[in-house]
Amino acid sequence: MKKANVPTYKNLRKRKKRIPGESPGTFVVLDNALPSKLRIYAYDEENIAELETSSIEKALAFVNSHPEKFYWLDIQGLGSQEVLNSVQQKFNINALVMEDIVNNHQRPKYEEFSNCIFVVSRVLELDENINLKNEQLSLIVNHNFLITFQEDYEDILNPIRQRLVHKKLGNIRTLGPSYLLYAIMDVATDHNFNLINRLGDELEIIEGILYDKPQKSIMYRIQGVKKIMLTMRRIAWPERDKLNDLYKSSSIFIHPDVKVFLRDVADHNVQIIDLLETYRETSTTMMDIYLSMINNRMNEVMKILTVISAIFIPLTFIAGVYGMNFAVEDPVSGKIMKNNMPELYWENGYFFVWVLMIVITVLQIIYFIKKGWFRD
Amino acid sequence: MKKANVPTYKNLRKRKKRIPGESPGTFVVLDNALPSKLRIYAYDEENIAELETSSIEKALAFVNSHPEKFYWLDIQGLGSQEVLNSVQQKFNINALVMEDIVNNHQRPKYEEFSNCIFVVSRVLELDENINLKNEQLSLIVNHNFLITFQEDYEDILNPIRQRLVHKKLGNIRTLGPSYLLYAIMDVATDHNFNLINRLGDELEIIEGILYDKPQKSIMYRIQGVKKIMLTMRRIAWPERDKLNDLYKSSSIFIHPDVKVFLRDVADHNVQIIDLLETYRETSTTMMDIYLSMINNRMNEVMKILTVISAIFIPLTFIAGVYGMNFAVEDPVSGKIMKNNMPELYWENGYFFVWVLMIVITVLQIIYFIKKGWFRD
Amino acid sequence: MKKANVPTYKNLRKRKKRIPGESPGTFVVLDNALPSKLRIYAYDEENIAELETSSIEKALAFVNSHPEKFYWLDIQGLGSQEVLNSVQQKFNINALVMEDIVNNHQRPKYEEFSNCIFVVSRVLELDENINLKNEQLSLIVNHNFLITFQEDYEDILNPIRQRLVHKKLGNIRTLGPSYLLYAIMDVATDHNFNLINRLGDELEIIEGILYDKPQKSIMYRIQGVKKIMLTMRRIAWPERDKLNDLYKSSSIFIHPDVKVFLRDVADHNVQIIDLLETYRETSTTMMDIYLSMINNRMNEVMKILTVISAIFIPLTFIAGVYGMNFAVEDPVSGKIMKNNMPELYWENGYFFVWVLMIVITVLQIIYFIKKGWFRD
Amino acid sequence: MKKANVPTYKNLRKRKKRIPGESPGTFVVLDNALPSKLRIYAYDEENIAELETSSIEKALAFVNSHPEKFYWLDIQGLGSQEVLNSVQQKFNINALVMEDIVNNHQRPKYEEFSNCIFVVSRVLELDENINLKNEQLSLIVNHNFLITFQEDYEDILNPIRQRLVHKKLGNIRTLGPSYLLYAIMDVATDHNFNLINRLGDELEIIEGILYDKPQKSIMYRIQGVKKIMLTMRRIAWPERDKLNDLYKSSSIFIHPDVKVFLRDVADHNVQIIDLLETYRETSTTMMDIYLSMINNRMNEVMKILTVISAIFIPLTFIAGVYGMNFAVEDPVSGKIMKNNMPELYWENGYFFVWVLMIVITVLQIIYFIKKGWFRD
Amino acid sequence: MKKANVPTYKNLRKRKKRIPGESPGTFVVLDNALPSKLRIYAYDEENIAELETSSIEKALAFVNSHPEKFYWLDIQGLGSQEVLNSVQQKFNINALVMEDIVNNHQRPKYEEFSNCIFVVSRVLELDENINLKNEQLSLIVNHNFLITFQEDYEDILNPIRQRLVHKKLGNIRTLGPSYLLYAIMDVATDHNFNLINRLGDELEIIEGILYDKPQKSIMYRIQGVKKIMLTMRRIAWPERDKLNDLYKSSSIFIHPDVKVFLRDVADHNVQIIDLLETYRETSTTMMDIYLSMINNRMNEVMKILTVISAIFIPLTFIAGVYGMNFAVEDPVSGKIMKNNMPELYWENGYFFVWVLMIVITVLQIIYFIKKGWFRD
Repeated sequence: MKKANVPTYKNLRKRKKRIPGESPGTFVVLDNALPSKLRIYAYDEENIAELETSSIEKALAFVNSHPEKFYWLDIQGLGSQEVLNSVQQKFNINALVMEDIVNNHQRPKYEEFSNCIFVVSRVLELDENINLKNEQLSLIVNHNFLITFQEDYEDILNPIRQRLVHKKLGNIRTLGPSYLLYAIMDVATDHNFNLINRLGDELEIIEGILYDKPQKSIMYRIQGVKKIMLTMRRIAWPERDKLNDLYKSSSIFIHPDVKVFLRDVADHNVQIIDLLETYRETSTTMMDIYLSMINNRMNEVMKILTVISAIFIPLTFIAGVYGMNFAVEDPVSGKIMKNNMPELYWENGYFFVWVLMIVITVLQIIYFIKKGWFRD
Repeated sequence: MKKANVPTYKNLRKRKKRIPGESPGTFVVLDNALPSKLRIYAYDEENIAELETSSIEKALAFVNSHPEKFYWLDIQGLGSQEVLNSVQQKFNINALVMEDIVNNHQRPKYEEFSNCIFVVSRVLELDENINLKNEQLSLIVNHNFLITFQEDYEDILNPIRQRLVHKKLGNIRTLGPSYLLYAIMDVATDHNFNLINRLGDELEIIEGILYDKPQKSIMYRIQGVKKIMLTMRRIAWPERDKLNDLYKSSSIFIHPDVKVFLRDVADHNVQIIDLLETYRETSTTMMDIYLSMINNRMNEVMKILTVISAIFIPLTFIAGVYGMNFAVEDPVSGKIMKNNMPELYWENGYFFVWVLMIVITVLQIIYFIKKGWFRD
Repeated sequence: MKKANVPTYKNLRKRKKRIPGESPGTFVVLDNALPSKLRIYAYDEENIAELETSSIEKALAFVNSHPEKFYWLDIQGLGSQEVLNSVQQKFNINALVMEDIVNNHQRPKYEEFSNCIFVVSRVLELDENINLKNEQLSLIVNHNFLITFQEDYEDILNPIRQRLVHKKLGNIRTLGPSYLLYAIMDVATDHNFNLINRLGDELEIIEGILYDKPQKSIMYRIQGVKKIMLTMRRIAWPERDKLNDLYKSSSIFIHPDVKVFLRDVADHNVQIIDLLETYRETSTTMMDIYLSMINNRMNEVMKILTVISAIFIPLTFIAGVYGMNFAVEDPVSGKIMKNNMPELYWENGYFFVWVLMIVITVLQIIYFIKKGWFRD
Repeated sequence: MKKANVPTYKNLRKRKKRIPGESPGTFVVLDNALPSKLRIYAYDEENIAELETSSIEKALAFVNSHPEKFYWLDIQGLGSQEVLNSVQQKFNINALVMEDIVNNHQRPKYEEFSNCIFVVSRVLELDENINLKNEQLSLIVNHNFLITFQEDYEDILNPIRQRLVHKKLGNIRTLGPSYLLYAIMDVATDHNFNLINRLGDELEIIEGILYDKPQKSIMYRIQGVKKIMLTMRRIAWPERDKLNDLYKSSSIFIHPDVKVFLRDVADHNVQIIDLLETYRETSTTMMDIYLSMINNRMNEVMKILTVISAIFIPLTFIAGVYGMNFAVEDPVSGKIMKNNMPELYWENGYFFVWVLMIVITVLQIIYFIKKGWFRD
Repeated sequence: MKKANVPTYKNLRKRKKRIPGESPGTFVVLDNALPSKLRIYAYDEENIAELETSSIEKALAFVNSHPEKFYWLDIQGLGSQEVLNSVQQKFNINALVMEDIVNNHQRPKYEEFSNCIFVVSRVLELDENINLKNEQLSLIVNHNFLITFQEDYEDILNPIRQRLVHKKLGNIRTLGPSYLLYAIMDVATDHNFNLINRLGDELEIIEGILYDKPQKSIMYRIQGVKKIMLTMRRIAWPERDKLNDLYKSSSIFIHPDVKVFLRDVADHNVQIIDLLETYRETSTTMMDIYLSMINNRMNEVMKILTVISAIFIPLTFIAGVYGMNFAVEDPVSGKIMKNNMPELYWENGYFFVWVLMIVITVLQIIYFIKKGWFRD
């Protein structure tokens, strides 16, 4: 109940169980993977053709019918073993690479092979409850082909398709598949940037609540954001290494004019890391503030208790004293004992005891004021 | 209310939202950018001419009418697309660079191109409420041209203009645009130095309050300064890298005699980092002190409560005992019960009970003194 | 009792005592080591022969009777001095290596010698009480021989034996002993991966309890997991170095085609480190939450105490006042003292005192509500 | 008042305000700088001559009258512009170097120029109140000249002057100015070593107090020492870099035989850093102990309060019960109500209530003993 | 008293005061150094001769009378200036090295000279009170000579002497002084290993107490172990660098066959560092547990106080109310006031008030049970 309308901040990814001793280099599609959909583009500076199919044969035939072009083969859903097998054979992809593609828990990485380069990215999504979806986007690039492998049918690549088809400004049609690779890295980085900003906004909301009316749920929210950021960080650092390797790479599959663009996207990624580290410190600081607020509040509670107790306990004692029943006359023997509680029989005893109690109270209040307990 | 006349310590910069998939290398001025004002200087060791205009054509005509000089084109306000387009074409600037110039969230960086070098600095300002304004200053340098791009009309470059126009001591007119670049880096570094010192003063003020009369607002102030310093730090470290790259650069656009000056400004920047790290530790330490002060104070509150309770609760009990109504004579049957509360009918019972209570009190006070509760 | 059905999270390994000054390079089997069992495979792409024995002579004879093959000699139990002596002499193994094999507390490492390479791995096991068993697996590889040394009779290599014997997909029979070495590293890494995942599950269980009904045992559990992870970390980092050295090695005993596989397993190991670091931060965060929960709860306890005390202590004082016995008539002299506690003799004194007490109570409750003590 | 006879632990240095845009390479003496005093030595292995003067002309004349020697020009007080101008011109010193010399806030550094090397050291002093004085000592060395620039008239170089004049053991007269440079670095390092040891002693004193009778002032003292150490650390690390650069330098102005000495002093400096880091951890640990002591003490206070309250509050309640005035006879109607508080009219009611109260007390004490509250 | 039979965990080493400006390279024995005892071995593979003396002349004569051997000169006690002078002259040792030998506060280090190599080790001892003794062992090695310098007469080298004299297994007689150097490093490393293990045992004892019955002394013990480990760490890291330098060294004084042994000892030293870092984290974790235990216990104390107060304070109030003396009859005027405390005159008023008090108590207990205060 305490987290009623508070985001849940979950990592939605399930941990994968590895079966030790599986033959390496033998890839088997995952049980819960979606059937593969293929979308293929054949383009040069002037023309572009597109085909959507679920048959790898049709896709390869499409390639043959559009010779001397650049091609982008986009595979969404990694659940069709025969499609992936065909792709592997056709493009002569290392079996370990195929394994990394279907076992979608890889860190971002960049690997060079003699016939292609292999890039793994992770695409993050935050839903409205600030739960993190974290999917793998694998890319294979050779001199005229880009192949993208995605887990899901929904992706973030639409803007690139738009630019490719409508041939907007820029080099998207001219610099070959490595430029497409760059464009995808750029989209993913911008996308992650916006996620980070969303976390930043969330932190600001939390900070507002923290300074305004701190509640117990603050603690869960701060730690929730921290958890999301931990996962992001685990991705951002290898992403940086990957991008640095990419723009420093001497692979023949990366067009030399693309390098400067790759450096640019690497720069942006460093900004992501900067922000993540800053937000991490911010959230730690907010937790510190929250804790010292709890302490401060306890202090305040203690002060109220102490002031009330310090004032009334002595007074109650005095009242108790004059509530004692020491007798001036022994009811049995009738002996008079004038020393027993003579104050009770003073003309103005009651008045005097009130004066005494008021004096004590005033002195205590002065003492506490001097101590500064009523300040702040 | 609690932060009535306390600085607000805000980062005034808004986070920029990126639109993923925008064609890279196409720069579009920001919506809220100011229209561009141009100020151009043509100078050599002997002469200097100056023009203020808002027309890029006039500026370029001015350059043509003052041949064989060094030029400084200062552009304030990055809101005039056509001005920036003209500049890009005239100086053949990479589109990614133009994008970095108008999207003013870049980290400090240094990039070399075949026809120029590109430098990004960040200029920080603290207003009287210790809010941080953080603007981008971009510079392009080639063999005879320095172009500066600033977001705002107010800048920190006036001292340099003065020195350039009045040809004071030094090499400002003789060593070309790379010396001007250095001079600007130097002004920015000195400027940041003063900001850091201002934070240092703020920390000293806070420390004074902390040791004198710690209040709840202390916590907000410490964390506020920390927040500002986090942002500064995020800028200072890449700034250091930039300056190191600059003075080690072998670019032909940096006059060899300027290198020693650049090393000097790099040195100063390291001092900024030193101070930032020191202040960071200082603010952490102050937070620790504040927290232990809260704890100490709670301790003190608890002690007062405990002393008063420990002394008076037993006394009140005694008074309560002798306030009981056990009867020596049954009012109904008239039976005499001599064992019921005989103390009440002692000659000096009241006196004895006072003695008892005073003895208890004295013993307790001795105990607490021995415990050291009244010390410190 | 407090940890009744809670895992024990122990490191089961005993620390070894070193006897300083022992002659280095003289290896002596440990007292508690198990007698050695030998299992030897002679295989090429077509055929495979297997022998289980406890006699090293038989094993060597088996080798001689199967010439021109690859061999895997698997030694389980390191307690037979003469077996190990024979192995050392037969394969001309450095005495320091033999010492490292029998003194089973080595860090993961990779060493190259002129006639072989030497690899140390650590194999971890978690039992159902989350106690960590941590055994050494040493490997010696030359151009046609793999020798594995294991402390225990139970091992994790069965899947590899299966694949070797049944010649499943892959290169296990063709690429020689270095491929077997890789296969074992891969099994061990996958195995460790699953252990880490188990710790991750444990952390999730603990987190569930933490958020649901935090108990004191939470603290022990978090720290218990942390302790296990500390040990794992101490192994994972040198493991990473070892695997990196292996795949970058230029040793002639590592088949060139195996390098890409070794890089793959090194990659997986980096993921293990990533997870360990993330879980470490997670457990720190959980401890922080637990601590702030304790503080919050103390706050709540204090509030209840303070509310009850603040309300009833003044009321009790009032009741005490009107329980005093100041007399209107001196029982001895019979003097009338009308000023002594006249309230007691008002027509509705009792009613008025109740009104007073109710008013005080209501005011205090309003005060505490305003303070927000009953919220959250 | 709370810090009556406690060291003040201040950094006595004032922060310098930089005026952005000052022409670099133009040095102006500081307002508060002392007038310069010159002391010059001309020496070779056999002879030494010395002159004290405040006139730079006399000093240069003295040099001319003692040709073919090594010279040490020691300048104390950096307030005489004309002296420094003459020195700059005579030795052709880079203007940036002169600026670094008079603006005495430089980090330790080592710079090589074509005609000299430039070294900045910082000389630390602790006064009896553990306030840190932190002065700059700048050195310029060429093949036959050492120039030292000091802010103050008091310095730590006397032992070197003694050794130079009295030609004690060692190479001080034979290896030229770079040996003198080394000797000064060595003196400064030994000097700093003693300061660190003084801080170590201070920490031990504080630790003694901490374990013996922890007071609130402990907190200030620990943090005070920490503050001093922060400043020292900021100097020690660049000092280490400087010394490493010096002994690895290939400058022709450093005599090859001096290198081994420079390595030795670099070694000693690393020991300083070691100690600083250790003391830093020690002071953090002491703060932790102090904080847990506060907590422990609060615990103890709470226990006393709770024991006394737990024992006496129920007893007081019982006493209160038998202080109630429920009547056995209605004073108005005279009706007898035998059920109202019959205990009061038992023969030994008073005795029984004491027994009840003692039993309750004993049970509670047993409970608290079992809980272990009276232990430790 | 609180630390009665608890180890004292002291660093027994005294800090040395440096006298700044002492001529470097002039070594003077320390005041408190022991007179030197010499023990010299002359050996080859076949024979060995030994001499114990306190005369350096006799030792050198012994060398001359045993030509063509390897020699080990072991000097225990560094208090005989003339002995050390002779050694320096005979072996032409750099004066700085001699200074490092007698000023026994050096970090572990390795230095190469043209005529010898110089190694400093630190030998640690823990006494039964876990106080750390930390002595310097300096070694000089050339092609046929090993000289060891030790502060004390007691040492850890006996096992090496045994092996050297009795020519046990191994290369101790054949590989020359660099093998002896290795053997000593190995003994020292094993020795330190055992110390670390002892600290590990101590931590386990402390952990046992911590989980069983946490006491205040726990805090001192944890921090005491931490202090010892800080010192060990300060030695272990440079020790690692030293050993790495040693085994990578290309000095002609290190026999090539010894390198593999030196790598082995370097490996062991890394394990020491691993353990130190792990124990450091463990002790931090234990401190955290201790602190949260204190908090937990305070929580418990507070709960008891609150439960008792919450139950009895309202009851006492009720008793107080019916202990008030509002009168039904004015004793002076005799007026009847039936509204004053009519409950007192109800037939079963006393019974009803008990019912009321029991109901209140039961309700409160139910409330606290629901809150879960009696759980855990």
